[in-house]
Amino acid sequence: MVIGARPVIGAGDEIRSVDPRTGEPLEPGYRTASAEQADHACRLAREAATTYRTTAPEQRAAFLDRVADLLDEERDALVERAHAETALPLARLTGEAGRTSGQLRLFAAELRAGVWQGARVDRALPDRRPLPRADIRQRRTAVGPVVVFGASNFPLAFSTAGGDTASALAAGCPVIVKAHQAHLGTAELVARVVSRAAAETGMPAGVFSQLVGSGTELGSRLVRDPRVRAVGFTGSRSGGLAIAAAAAARPVPIPVYAEMSSINPVLLLPAALKARGAELGAAFAGSLTLGAGQFCTNPGLVLAVDGPGLDAFATAAAESVAADPGATMLTPGIARHYAAGGDALAGRQGVEETGRGGRSDSAACGRARLLTVDGARFTEDPALQTEVFGATSLIVRCADLDELTAALHVLEGQLTATVHADDADLPLAGRLLPLLEELAGRVLFNGWPTGVEVGHAMVHGGPFPATTDPRSTSVGTLAIERFLRPVAYQDVPDALLPEELRDANPLGVWRRLDGVPSRAPLTDDR
Amino acid sequence: MVIGARPVIGAGDEIRSVDPRTGEPLEPGYRTASAEQADHACRLAREAATTYRTTAPEQRAAFLDRVADLLDEERDALVERAHAETALPLARLTGEAGRTSGQLRLFAAELRAGVWQGARVDRALPDRRPLPRADIRQRRTAVGPVVVFGASNFPLAFSTAGGDTASALAAGCPVIVKAHQAHLGTAELVARVVSRAAAETGMPAGVFSQLVGSGTELGSRLVRDPRVRAVGFTGSRSGGLAIAAAAAARPVPIPVYAEMSSINPVLLLPAALKARGAELGAAFAGSLTLGAGQFCTNPGLVLAVDGPGLDAFATAAAESVAADPGATMLTPGIARHYAAGGDALAGRQGVEETGRGGRSDSAACGRARLLTVDGARFTEDPALQTEVFGATSLIVRCADLDELTAALHVLEGQLTATVHADDADLPLAGRLLPLLEELAGRVLFNGWPTGVEVGHAMVHGGPFPATTDPRSTSVGTLAIERFLRPVAYQDVPDALLPEELRDANPLGVWRRLDGVPSRAPLTDDR
Repeated sequence: MVIGARPVIGAGDEIRSVDPRTGEPLEPGYRTASAEQADHACRLAREAATTYRTTAPEQRAAFLDRVADLLDEERDALVERAHAETALPLARLTGEAGRTSGQLRLFAAELRAGVWQGARVDRALPDRRPLPRADIRQRRTAVGPVVVFGASNFPLAFSTAGGDTASALAAGCPVIVKAHQAHLGTAELVARVVSRAAAETGMPAGVFSQLVGSGTELGSRLVRDPRVRAVGFTGSRSGGLAIAAAAAARPVPIPVYAEMSSINPVLLLPAALKARGAELGAAFAGSLTLGAGQFCTNPGLVLAVDGPGLDAFATAAAESVAADPGATMLTPGIARHYAAGGDALAGRQGVEETGRGGRSDSAACGRARLLTVDGARFTEDPALQTEVFGATSLIVRCADLDELTAALHVLEGQLTATVHADDADLPLAGRLLPLLEELAGRVLFNGWPTGVEVGHAMVHGGPFPATTDPRSTSVGTLAIERFLRPVAYQDVPDALLPEELRDANPLGVWRRLDGVPSRAPLTDDR
Repeated sequence: MVIGARPVIGAGDEIRSVDPRTGEPLEPGYRTASAEQADHACRLAREAATTYRTTAPEQRAAFLDRVADLLDEERDALVERAHAETALPLARLTGEAGRTSGQLRLFAAELRAGVWQGARVDRALPDRRPLPRADIRQRRTAVGPVVVFGASNFPLAFSTAGGDTASALAAGCPVIVKAHQAHLGTAELVARVVSRAAAETGMPAGVFSQLVGSGTELGSRLVRDPRVRAVGFTGSRSGGLAIAAAAAARPVPIPVYAEMSSINPVLLLPAALKARGAELGAAFAGSLTLGAGQFCTNPGLVLAVDGPGLDAFATAAAESVAADPGATMLTPGIARHYAAGGDALAGRQGVEETGRGGRSDSAACGRARLLTVDGARFTEDPALQTEVFGATSLIVRCADLDELTAALHVLEGQLTATVHADDADLPLAGRLLPLLEELAGRVLFNGWPTGVEVGHAMVHGGPFPATTDPRSTSVGTLAIERFLRPVAYQDVPDALLPEELRDANPLGVWRRLDGVPSRAPLTDDR
């Protein structure tokens, strides 16, 4: 573990990650954090919070850049260990490592771009009648220590130095990571990198800690700690809801950004389906089985109007799925949950199994699975919306567009909604789009939802239960806003103002000057 | 009441507002909403939500402007009725009416300024290796129907067409107002204005409703309704916490923006106190007794180091308070609470009464009150932070700066923190400022916290228990963000995109083009 940027051995029981191929425990064992160790990490985070919050954006950018550089240097070791712990393919993990360091550099660049502060300056109007107006300025600043829960399915990009950590550190918040038990070794390697970068760039000690322990014990202890100010989580619906409930029950409630559950509906519109049903079916199966289907944005639901186009789609999808050799899932437990979830879905009234992938001899084998149901039945049975984390998808055959629209209306909130449309479908797509905007955080056309681009415009979020807070995203530069709050300064002397609000605008940030975006310094030439 | 922009008589019991001077009920009686009527309002709001959300910003701006114009036309009638119901002075209410219509016009202007959408465009990179980048664009859109609770202390600016309603309508959210029982007639007059403006500007019927009923029954029914997507509330801590708990316990939790409890610490630094203690004391008493102290930003706490300066301050404040004739509070219930809260505070160990205002013969008389305690005692006793809504304030005499700093460290979250400082105090003020930023939503120098400017840079919010959500403000243009969520569009055809994201940027909004703020249309000249 790491507490206050120093390596520490836990005082609790020893736990191990497991090789998902064999089910055998991996060396070394990691001892869990005691209550005192969790308290210590929170205390150091709180002690570092003000110092770290008030570092210059450039200092934090240098810290993040250094983490990225060191991650790149350690890439081979990281990928190797993550491969042993997760069975994710080496190529995928290499890509994920690049994404992780790229994400850190993106937040470093965002810190330098000077938009994230949300600076606003309303100049004084001393001659206004009946009352003069004071000088009022606003900027966003960090909320305080943030707890991040590592995610099983992205041991690098959504874990120790992943998106939640990068955005919280960028915002100016100390971070305490609860390492995911599925990849303790990877977590340790990354934590050492973050600690080293923090030391090298002169950050306060409490800016980063990583603890080992269970979600129910350590996790809930951290969420309830009064010094913690926000939580980032990617994982199961039950886990996210438990954290959100604990956070809401605190004497001082705090925001929880939990990304939980989404089945990512894919709509196949008539002209597209007619023109290229089989092609879409094969491509869909590729998106479904990618990474054993272990993506939050995995296409778990297909909606279309019945007919020859959908037949061609379903046949091609079933063939591709049948050709899938089966994959090793992240942990034996996830594989068990996956199989049980698929069985439960397949056992619902009106559901038929229409495709099945192969079985590998791994201890955590996940077999791809296609199920089919008709639109009326789907609309009646909310249980058919249950996420099965892995490569299982439900094809909903609708009698007509009305039935398809009715199915859309009963859907829970989603991370993504995908439309396959040809030109002739665009009027229909235009009518459906307002529904899809209200349903999901990201609407995409003629693509597949897996593969989340890390950029300025990405939204990886959406209405409940996709997340606990649809006003945000956990991927992309907007994610920094989760860990900021606005503060106004009224008639505060220029020398005491944060730099982004000073008359001279020494950081060259974008500000709304009396409402109008500008990077100009303040002059008195009104 | 108004349901779906039409006048409706409630199906429940009759309730009346009360003349706080006499305690006598005022005519007419208003019948409360039945469960069916509440359901009807929610259904109409949901039906209107998509249509209203997708109106052009200019259409909503015209609606808000029309509400403002009609409020100005009705100003005399509004002020007269509000005066009868609240006993607030006519001049204050006239100012508040102007603030209310000004606030609506500010949000109309904000809609036209094209910043609130938070538009972002990341252009496609078809040649990127190893994978091409899709075209991804982002904007904020309305969350859906919003419930607004009218506030007792601002019958116009924080009630039916107040800041919460204005910002939610600007965002594109239908609004259902629960009228405050203390000013039912004012609420009715304003609701008629909003309805008329909605009809005149062609808004869908469900865009606005106002219901009469109790917080525990009607209020909690509305908060739990599945069609409601967010809540705005200004009022007591117990009321806000009850609403937040109900919202968190929903099957689909929703955000609650409750502005609740703040004692607004005022720090008197040594040089300022020495130079003008008496002057500050008189000015403080003016801020304290303004409007019978019935402001969320009322200065309920003064912190300073003991000495002759503080003696002069306390003496002058006590003299001014003694000269205060007493005022009629908003309701007899508020006056009872105020007296009981002051008695409870005065009864705590170590607290001394050092100033008392006069008593009027009103049924809801509030007498100003000054209490004093030493710094060590204050730091030990959390009960001394209890807000007493009205003109009671606690002066904390600290032995030295360490004791003052210790007192700051134990303070709960606040709406405001005020510093009185002369030039010689600025180094000390600079050291304290980081603490104050973490404590409050607004930090002000050499002024008084009462009087909240409505502008772009204002933050009327702050850490718990000042609000349930410190990431926002309930006053100023940033308030619109409470009712928006981001949506990303990936490879969506230009003609189907919302106007603010189209290549040509027909609305001329500010967008981040590959991260850089710009109002330019999109061209291919990269």
